[in-house]
Amino acid sequence: MKRFNCDYQEAAHPRILVRLARTNMDQMPGYGEDEVCDAARARIRALCAAPEADVQFLVGGTQANFTLLAAALRSYQGVLAAQTAHIAVHETGAVEATGHKVLTLPPEDGKITAAQVDAACAAHYADEAHEHMVMPKAVYISQATELGTIYSRAELEAMRAVCDRWQLYLYVDGARLGYAMAAEGCDVDLPALARLADAFYIGGTKQGALFGEAMVIRNDALKRDFRYVIKQKGGMLAKGWLLGMQFDELLRDDLYFELSRHAVRLAMKLRAALTEMGVPFLLDSPTNQQFPILPDVVLAELGREFSYSYQCRVDESHSAVRLCTSWATTEEDLDALIEELWRLLVQ
Amino acid sequence: MKRFNCDYQEAAHPRILVRLARTNMDQMPGYGEDEVCDAARARIRALCAAPEADVQFLVGGTQANFTLLAAALRSYQGVLAAQTAHIAVHETGAVEATGHKVLTLPPEDGKITAAQVDAACAAHYADEAHEHMVMPKAVYISQATELGTIYSRAELEAMRAVCDRWQLYLYVDGARLGYAMAAEGCDVDLPALARLADAFYIGGTKQGALFGEAMVIRNDALKRDFRYVIKQKGGMLAKGWLLGMQFDELLRDDLYFELSRHAVRLAMKLRAALTEMGVPFLLDSPTNQQFPILPDVVLAELGREFSYSYQCRVDESHSAVRLCTSWATTEEDLDALIEELWRLLVQ
Amino acid sequence: MKRFNCDYQEAAHPRILVRLARTNMDQMPGYGEDEVCDAARARIRALCAAPEADVQFLVGGTQANFTLLAAALRSYQGVLAAQTAHIAVHETGAVEATGHKVLTLPPEDGKITAAQVDAACAAHYADEAHEHMVMPKAVYISQATELGTIYSRAELEAMRAVCDRWQLYLYVDGARLGYAMAAEGCDVDLPALARLADAFYIGGTKQGALFGEAMVIRNDALKRDFRYVIKQKGGMLAKGWLLGMQFDELLRDDLYFELSRHAVRLAMKLRAALTEMGVPFLLDSPTNQQFPILPDVVLAELGREFSYSYQCRVDESHSAVRLCTSWATTEEDLDALIEELWRLLVQ
Amino acid sequence: MKRFNCDYQEAAHPRILVRLARTNMDQMPGYGEDEVCDAARARIRALCAAPEADVQFLVGGTQANFTLLAAALRSYQGVLAAQTAHIAVHETGAVEATGHKVLTLPPEDGKITAAQVDAACAAHYADEAHEHMVMPKAVYISQATELGTIYSRAELEAMRAVCDRWQLYLYVDGARLGYAMAAEGCDVDLPALARLADAFYIGGTKQGALFGEAMVIRNDALKRDFRYVIKQKGGMLAKGWLLGMQFDELLRDDLYFELSRHAVRLAMKLRAALTEMGVPFLLDSPTNQQFPILPDVVLAELGREFSYSYQCRVDESHSAVRLCTSWATTEEDLDALIEELWRLLVQ
Repeated sequence: MKRFNCDYQEAAHPRILVRLARTNMDQMPGYGEDEVCDAARARIRALCAAPEADVQFLVGGTQANFTLLAAALRSYQGVLAAQTAHIAVHETGAVEATGHKVLTLPPEDGKITAAQVDAACAAHYADEAHEHMVMPKAVYISQATELGTIYSRAELEAMRAVCDRWQLYLYVDGARLGYAMAAEGCDVDLPALARLADAFYIGGTKQGALFGEAMVIRNDALKRDFRYVIKQKGGMLAKGWLLGMQFDELLRDDLYFELSRHAVRLAMKLRAALTEMGVPFLLDSPTNQQFPILPDVVLAELGREFSYSYQCRVDESHSAVRLCTSWATTEEDLDALIEELWRLLVQ
Repeated sequence: MKRFNCDYQEAAHPRILVRLARTNMDQMPGYGEDEVCDAARARIRALCAAPEADVQFLVGGTQANFTLLAAALRSYQGVLAAQTAHIAVHETGAVEATGHKVLTLPPEDGKITAAQVDAACAAHYADEAHEHMVMPKAVYISQATELGTIYSRAELEAMRAVCDRWQLYLYVDGARLGYAMAAEGCDVDLPALARLADAFYIGGTKQGALFGEAMVIRNDALKRDFRYVIKQKGGMLAKGWLLGMQFDELLRDDLYFELSRHAVRLAMKLRAALTEMGVPFLLDSPTNQQFPILPDVVLAELGREFSYSYQCRVDESHSAVRLCTSWATTEEDLDALIEELWRLLVQ
Repeated sequence: MKRFNCDYQEAAHPRILVRLARTNMDQMPGYGEDEVCDAARARIRALCAAPEADVQFLVGGTQANFTLLAAALRSYQGVLAAQTAHIAVHETGAVEATGHKVLTLPPEDGKITAAQVDAACAAHYADEAHEHMVMPKAVYISQATELGTIYSRAELEAMRAVCDRWQLYLYVDGARLGYAMAAEGCDVDLPALARLADAFYIGGTKQGALFGEAMVIRNDALKRDFRYVIKQKGGMLAKGWLLGMQFDELLRDDLYFELSRHAVRLAMKLRAALTEMGVPFLLDSPTNQQFPILPDVVLAELGREFSYSYQCRVDESHSAVRLCTSWATTEEDLDALIEELWRLLVQ
Repeated sequence: MKRFNCDYQEAAHPRILVRLARTNMDQMPGYGEDEVCDAARARIRALCAAPEADVQFLVGGTQANFTLLAAALRSYQGVLAAQTAHIAVHETGAVEATGHKVLTLPPEDGKITAAQVDAACAAHYADEAHEHMVMPKAVYISQATELGTIYSRAELEAMRAVCDRWQLYLYVDGARLGYAMAAEGCDVDLPALARLADAFYIGGTKQGALFGEAMVIRNDALKRDFRYVIKQKGGMLAKGWLLGMQFDELLRDDLYFELSRHAVRLAMKLRAALTEMGVPFLLDSPTNQQFPILPDVVLAELGREFSYSYQCRVDESHSAVRLCTSWATTEEDLDALIEELWRLLVQ
């Protein structure tokens, strides 16, 4: 079985294992207060052109999301997000479990717009009964989105302006941030993101690390006592240096970006091949997640050797599925997938 | 100003004040563990034909809703409800503040169907990633709904069957239960509701009491330790007998039903008059809340003497508003409203 | 049975019922945004010499406590309180249910000291692992305390100074505030309290109202959006004017203070009588709650006609109990109690 | 600097790194639903002689504790624990953040007794106002305790009996379970623990793993839907097999027990040496944490080359500190520590 159903199916880039093996028995202080974490922090601040940013390392994405939002919101405040947002559908209500409502907006291709956020806030404050409704106080978006699409710099500038108008925090889930930045036409780099978002995380789990996400906080109000919240929410790894070390390694020598480009190049190769075969897509994704619409009979056959992730039914005999590449996907495996699709669809 | 914007603008039916005055200095034990509450409980059990039901008194509707749901749900479970449900839009995220997601379904005229609930549950358990999603464990409906519509007995039977299939609690918000039962064609009486719902409350605040709601619990799993939850959530009134006394009085000599019929009769008179004037309605409500669509210029004029509740914009020059009657509305005031509408719309 | 076990066993002072009856059918806007509430607010601000204070009405004490603390604390912050504090022992973990730890300190006669708070904060910040511990951010005290004792102005000044040093909110539970102010030697009046506390409530439930507590907020940070929190936590009474009206009435013509003095006078009469009989007390209370230590055999006998509240075992054959007077206690009933005690203890 | 301040200062036992390197690019399904995790589960069930136990892997101890307790408790229920319990003092109120009170009992040498738990429950249910108090529903103990002491089998049998009497869950925090089992005289092995506790975890972080704890659940009520709770609380690692692999490796060929014995042997050597030097201890610990009482001047000097963890002041010139050994401590480093102590104390 060759797995294309998600992008976290191998352990870590070999350089991380080498680094780990080299330093395995070094004695380190706990909880991310060590020089390796500090080195990774410095590297991230430099890459983000954000010398005053606070950088904290968390174990996983769900944890990163609800921890940041719990730190940001007062009890009666909620977070605006797409109906397809990871926090809205695939975190078992983790945000609600910290007491906060996810206020969903209907997305287009996984994205929400500044205009939607503006309208939601305007409607809230215009309502006489607004004290009876959850106050919007943050916006959650993901880059790339859960559907592989990306926000442009202009879109983020507009979102920032709306957030400023209504005093909202702008938080960006960067589980696949590298894959977004590697997409053709993506004009949002780390400095741009650091300038526009109040907080965001640089994903490690799906991008070459064993595990771990690097939260970058620009807004001082969110920095304050954030480590207390991490500890309380279960995200403070005793051996914090394990997280710092991975980011220090990934962000050295362009490795993170190189791995991201690799995955996206393969995804584009897959997209081109499928397009050539006449396969339509649920939507146009420039990143490592592709959502082709395939005949159910083909899917049944394909699934014998290649794993995919079921997305949704499209019509009586067709479904959309997700196929992911990652830093670990080999050209060989991708070619095998394309060949098999060719065999099933064209021949 | 004559107020038709909501149905809780006068204090209480005079009989309640008389009863209060008569017993004012009687010494009573606290927290609803007194003979007056017990008498009210017995009366409610008898009216519901539910001798084993647990009856507890709470101060208000929002409190009743989140207290019951907090008692019913484990941390990862949520409640299915209409997008227009009171718990979804007008309780400042009270349910989420107890940690639980409100899983919304698109309603028709404020109502959701057994088929929708069935489909939502089927989709949940069919999804491979269901552990990553909030588990549906309860259904919240309101009778009458926030839009004045009512569920038929057949609809509730169907909902009950679906709840049994998926092991869901069926909880009914009865803030306006009397007005629902007084509606023409309503075939859901108290025994039917007590048979079909796991828990529901009989509304007092909008139905002639100073304040208070009577929670009726049929399901043993919800009865257990429910008073601990009431206390923890701030709903255990020190002078609990004040609540019991009001229900004991309202439910004596048919008063509760009589007051409900009065309000609905006036609402139907208003509906007939508006219909005669050619006014369309947002939807067809058989209860005390009416949602006519009126020209904005008429609304501006009308608002000088009569209060209404703004509902939504319908087109460039028309809006839907809510006009409520209640146990306290006088025929005189309603006639004045009709006359004014006639003057503004027809003459 | 004559009841002395608590101070909320009668409904309300007759003037409140008269006022209620007089205005019963007046139409009022909901949720405490009405002129009666505003009049009560103005009266409270004037009595507190705090023209800029925010005043909000809540239904009960537990609700008032956790609502205020939920508004004050971020997720990782807790509240310092006596081990005997109502929030620590008799609210079914209501504060914890909003996510916050009650950090208890060993009290003397129900009171904690500025020095204790200072030491707790110093210890917290001196600990290298302070991020692993709940940060103290508020102090909860009650005036009078759960044991009937009172804080002096000097004690509150010292507490204020410590709160300023460590940036803590000082919150005072005033369920029995009138009885405290009526105590001999009490030098903390409303203006003093309003000057020294960030927030406190003036108790109604135990002080002549049907129900209700008036929260007075001095600190701007606590005022912000407080009504959202009230609504979310279930404390926003639909017919809010019922609360405002009661405080408007109680605080007119010195009634609140007069009723408080009455209760304390009777309590002092009881204390003197018991002392004369040679009865020791658990502690010295100058307010309406008295804690005599009586032989168990006497208590068994006494309980036939007079209710008391069991406090704790003192030795093999003696227990401390609580006897309360209130605004509603009659001289007659108190004399009967004294006479019965005399009969049981002396004769 | 040689570090003895805690037992999680090196990464992992080399065998874990070897295993990781060997399988690094194997494609695995996510979230702990893979054959490596299943193999580890089988191994654990066998070692525990508990074929029907549910085994789930979590990232860290704080997370394991609050996740299990959140799954176990209803909103008004709390957990009994020692005042020195990790959940009571060093998890930033993580349990309270899930809404539950930690009901503390005064420990002796870090341990609480069955009699204390029995008395607490008896007092709760005997109190007329028990609905106003948090209901005890679970007992949390740690083996070894935070102070290095251990529970005997007889003590756990007694605790189990009390838990059965009051329908409490018995939950054991096994962060240092291996070190406990390696202690001289410890008669609680894995089968005994699995028989007596409703749930416990086998610690990995402090016992040779990079990170991770293995939760073993015996009680069916706690098994149900536990994975939903893990996901919601942020503890479901995407690459779950990383956790399973570590436990599979540690628990193979007696490695876990061997490493534990190593640490305890060194700790006993340290204890003997200190005793020989006439150093008193805060308490008698048979496990890898030792708490000697040393002159402050010696501590200042010692700290130049050897790290320790400050515990508490004992008198004006002496403090207790914690010195830990672990699976990674070398005999060489320990001898250096003893030598330095000898130099400072004796020479």
